[in-house]
Amino acid sequence: MEKPRAVLFDAYGTLFDVYGIGALAERLFPGQGQALAVLWRDKQIEYTRLVTTSNDGAHYRPFRELTQAALRYACKRLALALTEASEQQLMHQYHELPAFGEAREVLQALRERGVVTGILSNGDPPMLQAAVASAGLGPLLDHVLSVDPLRKYKTHPQAYALGTQATALPAADILFVSCNSWDALAATWFGYRTLWVNRYRLPFEELGTQPTRTGETLRDVLAFF
Amino acid sequence: MEKPRAVLFDAYGTLFDVYGIGALAERLFPGQGQALAVLWRDKQIEYTRLVTTSNDGAHYRPFRELTQAALRYACKRLALALTEASEQQLMHQYHELPAFGEAREVLQALRERGVVTGILSNGDPPMLQAAVASAGLGPLLDHVLSVDPLRKYKTHPQAYALGTQATALPAADILFVSCNSWDALAATWFGYRTLWVNRYRLPFEELGTQPTRTGETLRDVLAFF
Repeated sequence: MEKPRAVLFDAYGTLFDVYGIGALAERLFPGQGQALAVLWRDKQIEYTRLVTTSNDGAHYRPFRELTQAALRYACKRLALALTEASEQQLMHQYHELPAFGEAREVLQALRERGVVTGILSNGDPPMLQAAVASAGLGPLLDHVLSVDPLRKYKTHPQAYALGTQATALPAADILFVSCNSWDALAATWFGYRTLWVNRYRLPFEELGTQPTRTGETLRDVLAFF
Repeated sequence: MEKPRAVLFDAYGTLFDVYGIGALAERLFPGQGQALAVLWRDKQIEYTRLVTTSNDGAHYRPFRELTQAALRYACKRLALALTEASEQQLMHQYHELPAFGEAREVLQALRERGVVTGILSNGDPPMLQAAVASAGLGPLLDHVLSVDPLRKYKTHPQAYALGTQATALPAADILFVSCNSWDALAATWFGYRTLWVNRYRLPFEELGTQPTRTGETLRDVLAFF
């Protein structure tokens, strides 16, 4: 099989390490940080799906707003009193996320091979630009693609189609990389070649489709080349 | 405001009590039953959303199949060995669900007032018919509507539109009742009057829309009349 001509990465949890969010949550709410971080993340994803499915985008709100709404829900659910200061601290984490340790070397290796690189994310442009700048990855990325102009989140096929449009390549020539199993699944459905980076040794989704490959870190991208 | 002319109920967790599923899970996997029931239910709903959003129904599978896939995922995630016998026992629970204690009297009261009654559910027709028969609610329901022919699950607006089509009533003349906050939310977005039956004292979704009313049991339906 031909080598991929472009590699598109999911952002949160894939290129950017969101561990610090849970750590801050634990400092703010001792003993509840892990529960808050998990519920916050689950709700954030749920909200992207609810607004995407319902009424053709009429209820779309940018990722920052859904993230904030999900945080408020999660705190209410766990009976945690969320002060304005704590909310701002937690939300601000999304603007200064570190990249995973191996992200830079993998992106550099791709560039050296002449492979097109990019992010394809649910994040809205200001969030993404802040994270890219904070992690210092800007010079290594050809594309930073946000679903925001579409008003539809992944896993909508139009969201994945941003990658083929931006690169002017067919999906089968693009490797899509995600640590989120649902994202790797839907990208496979869309037609991308996929790498599921299974950092946390989780089972894959049971919907009858497997990613092209499964790896443990971003370094496994390089095995495609 | 005019009284509603029809009342449509969500099925699982709203008319039908799914508590027995967790109880059986606990007998099969002592100490893990609650975790399994929660993860199973969350994954079941997640799978309805993934197949609805992705590729316009190409990956649709009936609710029974998604429910089974979600059970398998949840057991793998929790490292529980799911035998074929245990899987069959757990899946069979969906076919013999009891109704909540007050369901019958509420449906009877609606019928006495000449109000059209029905179920609007993600369940596929065999699952729904089995649950309706098991709970003995068939004679009290004018409609048992499944999203299955559409190949799209709630919260897709076409799923909610099954209710207006079947009753030939405008959405504003129909009361939609659900214990699931996401369902009450999206039904409100669709245009139904809504009652969120908040049995477990949870927060409502933080997406800027409230249900028409919030109650604690199905009896709160009758306050609309």
